[in-house]
Parts: sequence; C-alpha cells; structure tokens
Amino acid sequence: MNKRIGFIGLGIMGRPMCQNLINAGYSLTVWNRSQPGIDIVVGYGATAASSPKEVAGKSDVVITMVVDSSDVRQVILGTNGVIEGVRAGMTVIDMSTISPKVTREIAEQLAQKEAKMLDAPVSGGDTGARAGTLSIMVGGPEEAFNECLPILEAMGKNIIHIGANGAGQTVKLCNQIACVLNILGVSESLVLAAKSGVDLKKMHQAVSAGAAGSWMMTNLPPKIMVRDFEPGFMVKHQQKDLRLVMEAAQDLGISLPGASLVHQLFHSVEADGNAEKGTQALVTALEKLADVEVKD
Amino acid sequence: MNKRIGFIGLGIMGRPMCQNLINAGYSLTVWNRSQPGIDIVVGYGATAASSPKEVAGKSDVVITMVVDSSDVRQVILGTNGVIEGVRAGMTVIDMSTISPKVTREIAEQLAQKEAKMLDAPVSGGDTGARAGTLSIMVGGPEEAFNECLPILEAMGKNIIHIGANGAGQTVKLCNQIACVLNILGVSESLVLAAKSGVDLKKMHQAVSAGAAGSWMMTNLPPKIMVRDFEPGFMVKHQQKDLRLVMEAAQDLGISLPGASLVHQLFHSVEADGNAEKGTQALVTALEKLADVEVKD
Repeated sequence: MNKRIGFIGLGIMGRPMCQNLINAGYSLTVWNRSQPGIDIVVGYGATAASSPKEVAGKSDVVITMVVDSSDVRQVILGTNGVIEGVRAGMTVIDMSTISPKVTREIAEQLAQKEAKMLDAPVSGGDTGARAGTLSIMVGGPEEAFNECLPILEAMGKNIIHIGANGAGQTVKLCNQIACVLNILGVSESLVLAAKSGVDLKKMHQAVSAGAAGSWMMTNLPPKIMVRDFEPGFMVKHQQKDLRLVMEAAQDLGISLPGASLVHQLFHSVEADGNAEKGTQALVTALEKLADVEVKD
Repeated sequence: MNKRIGFIGLGIMGRPMCQNLINAGYSLTVWNRSQPGIDIVVGYGATAASSPKEVAGKSDVVITMVVDSSDVRQVILGTNGVIEGVRAGMTVIDMSTISPKVTREIAEQLAQKEAKMLDAPVSGGDTGARAGTLSIMVGGPEEAFNECLPILEAMGKNIIHIGANGAGQTVKLCNQIACVLNILGVSESLVLAAKSGVDLKKMHQAVSAGAAGSWMMTNLPPKIMVRDFEPGFMVKHQQKDLRLVMEAAQDLGISLPGASLVHQLFHSVEADGNAEKGTQALVTALEKLADVEVKD
C-alpha cells in the first residue's frame, strides 16, 4: 500500500514536487505558510491541513521543503509543529537546504519520539522539480532511505545515500562551493576577454571543450553575452546557501577563502538591486571592477 | 610543396610536436638552448642549426615553443635571433604562452621585416602534444592563419582563429583563469567534505554530474583522494601563466580577485616544496588552512 505523504512548503519547488508525487499515485496532505500555494496544490488533488501538526497526524511520511534552518526548525519543532503530531516509526524527510548541524539537532529531537529523519536536499532547480529529475543527496539511517526511495524516485533521478544525518546537507554545500567558484571562473574569463576586445563567442568556443570546461562555462556565457539575467537559480538563494557554507566553515574551524570571496562579491550584486536575478549576475560585480560590459 | 619548418624550443612540449610534424612529412631545422633536446629531435630526423638566426635562414615558417615572454623576445628579437635571418613573406608562429602585450610588440618588429606572426598558444599538455590533439588558440592575420593551418593540424585538433595578434594569448589566459578557479572549487569542496567526515567518493559521485560539474571535478578528486600529486600540468607552469594573467589585469586596469587568490594560494604550495607537482596540489594549501587531509 502506498504511504500517505504530508508535504509542507508549497513554493516554487514544492508545488511541482507535489504534482509529481500525486502523478505517482500518492495521496497528499499539505500545509503552507501562505494561502496561494495551498490553493494551487489542492487543485492538483491534495488535501489541506490547518497545521504541520495535523499534516503529521494524517501522514506516514512528512516532507518539508521550506527555505532556511529556522523555517525547518519552526515547522518541525515549533508550536503546532510536526513533532506534536508525529508517531513512532514515521519518517520526516527535509528536502530544504539547511545547516548540517541544525539537521542533526532536529533528527535527535525526532528520535526521542521514535521517528526517523532524512536530510535530502536537492539540486536541479524548478526545472528539475517540474521534470522530476532533481539530484537528491541523502543523509540519515539506511533503512529509512531504502523505505523512502520510491517516494524520492517520484521527484528525482540521481539519488545518492551519502551517510548519517547531516551528510546530505554537507554534500549539498560542497556542491554549492564548486558551483559558485565555477561561476567566478566564467565571470573573470569573460571580463578579461571583453576588456581585451576579444571576440567573446570565439573565446567561449575555444575554452568550453577542454580543461577549463564546466557546466557553468557551457551554460552561462550564452546568457551573459546577450545580457539575459533571468533566474535559473536566484542570487538571494545562492547567498542563503553560501551563508550555510560560511556557518559550516566556522563550526568546523576551516577556511574557505574562495567561497568567502564569492559570497562577498554577491553582496555587491545584491546591493545593486539584483538579488532576484540569476547567479550569472555575478559577472556584473566583476564588470564594475573592470569598467567593462560583457556583451557580444 | 611542403613548407620548410624551423622549430625553436625542444622541451617536454616541443619534442613530441616536432615528432608529429616530421610524421606529417615536414622537414625540420631545429635549435634549443641546451643539447639534450637537440639530440632527441635530430634522432627523429630533424637537422640542427647553430642559432635561431640560422633556423630562420633555412625555413619558410618558424615555430617557437619556449617558456616565457622574455624567452620568446630573446630567441626572436635578440642577438642571432630569428629576426636576423627572417625574410619577407615568412611567418613566425609562437606557440608558447606569453604576454599578449609582448606578443603585439614582437609582431610589430617582425612586420618591419615584412614577416607575419601568429600567436598560437596551446592547451592539452604533453599528453595532447604526443597525441597531436592540442587545442590551439590563434591570433594574427587571417591569411597567415589559413596558410599555416595544415601545419597546426599536424599538432592539434581544436584550432580556432580568434582575432588579431595577442587574441590567442588573451584567450589562453581566459582558459587558465577558468581552470584555476575550477580547481579551487574542487579543493574547497573536498576539504569541507573531509573535515565533515563525509564519504568522499559518494560526495564526488553526487556533485560531478550536475551544475557543479567540470573537467577538473571529473578528473582531479580521484587523484587527490589517493594522494597522487604527479603532474599533468605543473604548479610552477600554472604560476607562470597566472603571473601573465596578473600582468594583463594590470595592463588593462581590471581586477580579477579570484585568479589573484589562487595565485597566492599556489605560492604557499610552492613554498612547501611542491612547485613541480601537479596543479591538483592546490588542495594541500586548503588542507593546511583546515588542518585536514583529503584521503579516501
């Protein structure tokens, strides 16, 4: 018998993930802080609950897909939170990107109610959420992972169990570090080429295929050269993830100078009013430092 | 009739490039600062000359493959240099990685003798040189490029004419910027994962395929995790290229904070006695800052 699923957090990511779960035959009980998300997902066939507590009471597995550590803490551990409705044997899957440390704290609280937790942050953005092709990095008990794998497979493709609770979030942060430094490499390359007066398309063609190649090098310059800064992934969300990276660096006592530099440069992008543009807008901070525009 | 080719600079790159030119049917006159390179390439069937001037006198096209801006200036413009033996209508192809500005100066000097110049730096390392699969980024007059294309095709595969003299070198620097920032992204990701105690192979598997993916992410972690720091491309050569990047940034009046950061971190790698290790040794500088070893 299909498990009854609870879903909390019906934003740009949560909505298509709910759609895919319903398409896969699951019955959904949902909750969201604001009404519009609820109306949309009820339209897909979900049932609305009045609190995270009620969601938990009516479900076997509860998924949370909210923004930050404090939001997850609130909906799971707060007043009328999931923890008040949770029963022994249930699993809570947090698919938000939050602090590995907070993840472990929440898992411990849930364990006191004999409920398990998986941290299962995703990459792939709203495009991947709609297509059901999200990459999912999972931390938590292996038996809970195996039990919930069919649910995750309704939403994603590259689904990897990394290790204990927090490991999924840690790997998501590793992913974000590599992403932003690749974006910085793309941006500084483009700025040097533009200021030198070099043909940008030929530069892009020459460097994309070899050792300088990356997903970001393939995908961002064609947008930047035509000044398309519409978001795939928004600067403000990238900055939230980089704050988590900096928190983790502090907790672990390590120095991540590259990630820190990009975090600072994105502050300048935000100060310029571009927090809701795509992360390719990093190039605009470098352009200011070079007094040049990267335009084909 | 095949052009007679002169080749100056018979190091780890020059030797296999000569071999491929000879295999393609060209006759070669060669010169090198030291004897061992000459002996090896004469063994392939080349003829030794006593100076760059003599090389130019006996050739229709002269290729230089030396280390830095000053070396190219010396063998082309110095006493007994190529310029003393060059004739009107000849082309000099500099395949070293040097300053775009020095490239333009040399091209101007050669133009006074009615000789053309191409700047044609390569990427792909000694592996690519042996296989004849170098990527070649070319600046200089289009008719000289078309005339010399068969020669370049004997040594490389992805051969792109970018624009005027200096444009090839500029694009090579763009390539190096993207490379080193991708290496930094790989290194910081690995250090965060290692200090967190996360399974490194699973982390690598989870992040390689998606938006964090890069040539460096695919190829470096498997070496780093087994502490293999043998050079594909040596730290000291990467540092030479980053000095050229910093020079270009100064000439152009632009700020490249990411490339500059990696340049500084590589100083630490060099100070540690690892100048002749591969560029994946960047991770050792980050490991020191985190007091951790990335090891599977």
